[in-house]
Amino acid sequence: MAGSGYPATRESAHYGGVDACRRSRRARENSILEATLSVGTRPAALAAEVENALRDFFTSRQDLVDSVGGGYREAVTTLEDFVLRGGKRVRPAFAWTGWIGAGGDARGPDAGPVLRACSALELVQACALVHDDIIDASTTRRGFPTVHVEFAEQHRAGAWSGDSAHFGEGVAILLGDLALAWADDMIRESGITPEASARISPVWSAMRTEVLGGQFLDISNEARADESIDAAMKVNRYKTAAYTIERPLHLGAALAGADETLVSAYRRFGTDIGIAFQLRDDLLGVFGDPAVTGKPSGDDLRAGKRTVLFAMSLQRADADDPAAARLLREGIGTDLSDSDVDTLRTTITSLGAVADVEKQIEDLVQNALSTLAASTATSEAKQQLTEMAVAATRRDY
Amino acid sequence: MAGSGYPATRESAHYGGVDACRRSRRARENSILEATLSVGTRPAALAAEVENALRDFFTSRQDLVDSVGGGYREAVTTLEDFVLRGGKRVRPAFAWTGWIGAGGDARGPDAGPVLRACSALELVQACALVHDDIIDASTTRRGFPTVHVEFAEQHRAGAWSGDSAHFGEGVAILLGDLALAWADDMIRESGITPEASARISPVWSAMRTEVLGGQFLDISNEARADESIDAAMKVNRYKTAAYTIERPLHLGAALAGADETLVSAYRRFGTDIGIAFQLRDDLLGVFGDPAVTGKPSGDDLRAGKRTVLFAMSLQRADADDPAAARLLREGIGTDLSDSDVDTLRTTITSLGAVADVEKQIEDLVQNALSTLAASTATSEAKQQLTEMAVAATRRDY
Repeated sequence: MAGSGYPATRESAHYGGVDACRRSRRARENSILEATLSVGTRPAALAAEVENALRDFFTSRQDLVDSVGGGYREAVTTLEDFVLRGGKRVRPAFAWTGWIGAGGDARGPDAGPVLRACSALELVQACALVHDDIIDASTTRRGFPTVHVEFAEQHRAGAWSGDSAHFGEGVAILLGDLALAWADDMIRESGITPEASARISPVWSAMRTEVLGGQFLDISNEARADESIDAAMKVNRYKTAAYTIERPLHLGAALAGADETLVSAYRRFGTDIGIAFQLRDDLLGVFGDPAVTGKPSGDDLRAGKRTVLFAMSLQRADADDPAAARLLREGIGTDLSDSDVDTLRTTITSLGAVADVEKQIEDLVQNALSTLAASTATSEAKQQLTEMAVAATRRDY
Repeated sequence: MAGSGYPATRESAHYGGVDACRRSRRARENSILEATLSVGTRPAALAAEVENALRDFFTSRQDLVDSVGGGYREAVTTLEDFVLRGGKRVRPAFAWTGWIGAGGDARGPDAGPVLRACSALELVQACALVHDDIIDASTTRRGFPTVHVEFAEQHRAGAWSGDSAHFGEGVAILLGDLALAWADDMIRESGITPEASARISPVWSAMRTEVLGGQFLDISNEARADESIDAAMKVNRYKTAAYTIERPLHLGAALAGADETLVSAYRRFGTDIGIAFQLRDDLLGVFGDPAVTGKPSGDDLRAGKRTVLFAMSLQRADADDPAAARLLREGIGTDLSDSDVDTLRTTITSLGAVADVEKQIEDLVQNALSTLAASTATSEAKQQLTEMAVAATRRDY
């Protein structure tokens, strides 16, 4: 099983139909993906290649899963469907482009192993999403019931004994664990050299430790109603920026054996763009068009999310406008009507917080692009990462 | 971080005071542990060495955790306390003894790396326990509140916003994930050779895939009220036997580069003893003395556990005694009084199921010991594993 690796990634020209005009987070992720397609990916479609690698990995586990029997196979198939149907493969795209930018050869013998190692990021992400959906009590994801809801429904439909919701959560906890364990298996069996394994080991470790920390801070800040900009910024940094852009780029650099100078440039670029990406998301969470974001209007306000946008609004209100401060504190995390949402939006805008955040995004992107331009990344990757950065952060709502 | 490994394990003579006369599962685990102490462990106490290795590993993550900040450190300390205060280190003990039996040299240069790799099993176990406690809605573990209960209490004490129980579960999900991710980090950074890493990779993968499968079958059988002996036996095999004894021994053998003959003997021995261990536990779950097991009398009956003992009772009752079958089906998983428990116990015994299970244990142990005796393990390890097997399965309630 180990060493020999699972079957090589198949070539496929498929690339799902994506409407690049949609302007939600999902659409921005699509744009990032499309921006990677010209980066030395042969065959052309990186997302399809990532999915093939994931599919092959799941196939490689089948005998083991079947040996356990008793419905395990069906449960694992639910996980596989979840992993294969969704997501824009943003993390593998950044890791792959990071590798290319550090001199990786998309036509060379390392390309297959590197692609598989990059694809393993999607299994970490599967764990993060499945477990996050339990934590956030989310009922749908990517247009389907979340994993815990799906198993709760199975339980209910079968009139099984015990509590359906609790059963669904139990299965989802275990399947998330499996995805996390398999992420490690996939990277270990990717076929990369022992030297490359040793290089990526601390990056891989840091990435998982950081994202779990970011998720912890997220629920902890929300529970404690932490109002500080710092606290919100830390969540952006570790739950989004490090995990989505900085560490994937770092992983790609480490796979290629890049020097410290390039690693450092990638990390600064990735942190800035990652935070800007999340700030843009925060704006969409309050101001995004429901028809575009797929979420109810002002969803973040109702959910009580402690975003940087909200923290900045509060800070300004506390300094200048006690009535606005009271409005914000009383509204956040409650079941707001559409007109309440409108009032809060107007308040946030009037306080100047939107302009503040826009300015921050602009500064972060400028800074990131300068860092990138001055770096030793290949010119092909520079161009690509610039497009990906712009796609991730542009104002389009 | 990688490659260089975290600091070498300290030597320490400490070994916690254990009352070997106690006869619960915990006491049997203690006996297994004591049986390993003379196996070429210098310094003497394997458990203390495992704990030192774990402590050093936690220390090695501190900077990374601190960089995230915001209460993450305190949450991780809760996980560390959980890992360090408890457990009998049964899995590391079998892995270590498996390594010794395959020619590993406890005084040689590989001993430190191997000890660290074996100790990583305790982090997988930490994830399994923390997540299992959520799934089973358990409130105490090792005399302390379970992790999800501890964080729910923190939430309640702080009068934080949102639901306390849900917050506790969220944090416990994340900390279990962290333990699982760190188990991989610990084994990868243990300092074992790339060749040893390649050898253990499929074992490590199988072990985690199997135990998650066993946990899945466990909740699925219970929900579906599966009455078959086969279903209960599969849980024993994958949730207990493979995970606790077979795969740890296999891991030790793979670390030493043992040949297929020894690996096969270890695996057969481990499967038989592991199943016998769980069958003994099933008997204790119904007949164990609460003063000894630390659980209410007949706890497994109230909890609705679908054990082999229960499945055998039902099978015999269905064949010969419809009234007994009704009694069993109506009683299982309900809030039984002590006298109800007595009645069910008498029924199970009268049906001959206890004698059946005792006979199975005896046969499994005999079979395992013959396999071991005929194996190529070192005579020192044979003696040790025999003692560990007997300690794990003997009738002492």
